[in-house]
Amino acid sequence: MSTTGIVTPQYRQCHTPLRLQSGATLPEFTLAYETYGQLNAARDNAVLICHALNASHHVAGYYADDPDNIGWWDNMIGPGKPIDTHRFFVIGVNNLGSCFGSTGPTYLNPATNKPYGADFPVVTVEDWVEAQAWLAEELGIRQFAAVVGGSLGGMQAMRWAIRYPEKVKHCVMIATTPKLSAQNIAFNEVARQAICSDPDFHDGHYYQYGVVPKNGLRVARMIGHITYLSADVMAEKFGRALQNQNYHEVDYAFGYQAEFQIESYLRYQGDKFATYFDANTYLLITRALDYFDPAKAFGGNLAQAFAPIQAKSLVISFTTDWRFSPARSQEIVQALIRNQCAVSYAEIDAPHGHDAFLLEDPRYQRVMRNYFNQIELTTP
Amino acid sequence: MSTTGIVTPQYRQCHTPLRLQSGATLPEFTLAYETYGQLNAARDNAVLICHALNASHHVAGYYADDPDNIGWWDNMIGPGKPIDTHRFFVIGVNNLGSCFGSTGPTYLNPATNKPYGADFPVVTVEDWVEAQAWLAEELGIRQFAAVVGGSLGGMQAMRWAIRYPEKVKHCVMIATTPKLSAQNIAFNEVARQAICSDPDFHDGHYYQYGVVPKNGLRVARMIGHITYLSADVMAEKFGRALQNQNYHEVDYAFGYQAEFQIESYLRYQGDKFATYFDANTYLLITRALDYFDPAKAFGGNLAQAFAPIQAKSLVISFTTDWRFSPARSQEIVQALIRNQCAVSYAEIDAPHGHDAFLLEDPRYQRVMRNYFNQIELTTP
Repeated sequence: MSTTGIVTPQYRQCHTPLRLQSGATLPEFTLAYETYGQLNAARDNAVLICHALNASHHVAGYYADDPDNIGWWDNMIGPGKPIDTHRFFVIGVNNLGSCFGSTGPTYLNPATNKPYGADFPVVTVEDWVEAQAWLAEELGIRQFAAVVGGSLGGMQAMRWAIRYPEKVKHCVMIATTPKLSAQNIAFNEVARQAICSDPDFHDGHYYQYGVVPKNGLRVARMIGHITYLSADVMAEKFGRALQNQNYHEVDYAFGYQAEFQIESYLRYQGDKFATYFDANTYLLITRALDYFDPAKAFGGNLAQAFAPIQAKSLVISFTTDWRFSPARSQEIVQALIRNQCAVSYAEIDAPHGHDAFLLEDPRYQRVMRNYFNQIELTTP
Repeated sequence: MSTTGIVTPQYRQCHTPLRLQSGATLPEFTLAYETYGQLNAARDNAVLICHALNASHHVAGYYADDPDNIGWWDNMIGPGKPIDTHRFFVIGVNNLGSCFGSTGPTYLNPATNKPYGADFPVVTVEDWVEAQAWLAEELGIRQFAAVVGGSLGGMQAMRWAIRYPEKVKHCVMIATTPKLSAQNIAFNEVARQAICSDPDFHDGHYYQYGVVPKNGLRVARMIGHITYLSADVMAEKFGRALQNQNYHEVDYAFGYQAEFQIESYLRYQGDKFATYFDANTYLLITRALDYFDPAKAFGGNLAQAFAPIQAKSLVISFTTDWRFSPARSQEIVQALIRNQCAVSYAEIDAPHGHDAFLLEDPRYQRVMRNYFNQIELTTP
């Protein structure tokens, strides 16, 4: 159970059409969000948490009717935690295109009265930030004390600092990158191909057939999962250990059942994911990752893309993260320095690979705690 | 066209049942092989080339009726090449379970008169070496001047040196490992799951349905392909370049077509592979990779597993190979040294990742040429 306590998801509807980066328009949309702590009288203690691929607005705490469903960053956010809800008013928001409450492919398309499915428009990090900015207005927040995110969430924080410089006092970018590499795109593409070639995908209109492309989604998740863990932590956690057996004393089964523990672990992760995640959302979110590239419009010059930034930044990377390695964070730091922006950088020696940004690690938490402690608020 | 010239595949049938490591028995089998150069009078100039995952006995040269189909290691083997066929009698052999001519899942099962399909027994590196040893007897070769292999082929060379110490004068192990890591197994497992969850797989008996699980095989190959290339070479070759377009000047298409060049490259590789490779073979060969672990029977002590080795060894790794990194080759070198075996080790600074073992690289070729030049033969 979480010390952050009981939380309740909230929903806010926007009836003004949202023009997307692709040129398409969402006629209306709903954002699901949660808040923790209290907005102070000066309205300057709000912290926005942007989520990564498979997460949601449920960032901390638990639901009264589902105490085991604890928010994905509960170790970081709550009373007395590094992002201390005694001081900060924290907002978790679910992104457009997701399958956890905000408008996405499973929503009814008002034009057809059927689920959007594959007709849900491609959304980008830029679009998410526009929708979040609308929500901030609705909640009466003129400036965030901090916009925070890990991985894909870090891209949103970066976009916030570029797009709304006056609304972001601190930008916290964790285990992220200013753009995907060819290898990053390659892994996303294979995951998408696994989904799209599943006969139950029906070109994205599977809801109408009463099926879900669970085999494809399962394989997609297994691929993703490998990239979230470091080779070392996999070796340490699983090695070549066999299922329920003593590795050196027994012979192999000589078949294709899950024989090595790493096999059953991946199958379990894939199966679990396929029961709750939407395949169209997986496509949308991996594509948003691929497309993010703020330097693209500036001939690849990231410092130029960062020119508008006024926020102070904290950039954090993890030594064993081979998805978005420390070198990618250093590109961000360099581009900020070239703009004479205030930036703190921490490279955390953690064994867990990309997943480290979600895990409890004393050094990581100390960096976050110290950074948030020094953020000054008008009303404490 | 290849300077090694025209070659012809040969086939040899064994009517003595082969007992496999799993305990199963193959009642009879055929091996496909090719030879290059001439066996000398002393019969001591034979070099066995062991192939990796998706290769075959067609190691060098070309077929009279198919001049474009050049052997997979033609840059290394031929007259005047590093493994010089003026001096050496080189043998390429296709492994059991393959789909290129040796007995495998597409062969008729004599017990049922239907293709083996999923009933083809699981074969291991150890089994392949037994079958190759039978072929060596047939060809009158008592000792190989060298047994050579890259990747999975290197595992076979290693097994030869352990199992038949008196028959291997030199053991050449390139870009290989004494056992797969958890991450290596994980990638294999995802590939297998992609194949097995394709509805056209029919539990491995797809031949009877007149289909092949090409979607699964395609995804499996795409996953594999990512692991064969270094992130750097992918970045250099593809980066974030878009299809037929100038990256910085055009906008995205905002869809799921192959938009980045890396996407169309992977799709092309996957599609091509799915037209010629057998899915059951893919399962068998990845499983043989998973299972290989000569130290397993010795409580994980590789030096003990290597105790029988008499061969002199050459071990080669490539700096950017993240599938079987230089550290894995160094484990082999250390275990050989602990047995006071003669071993030469070269770590080649090459950008191409695991694929480097197949590519033409001057430093790599020089190491191979020098090593093979100093192998003494009774009759030159």
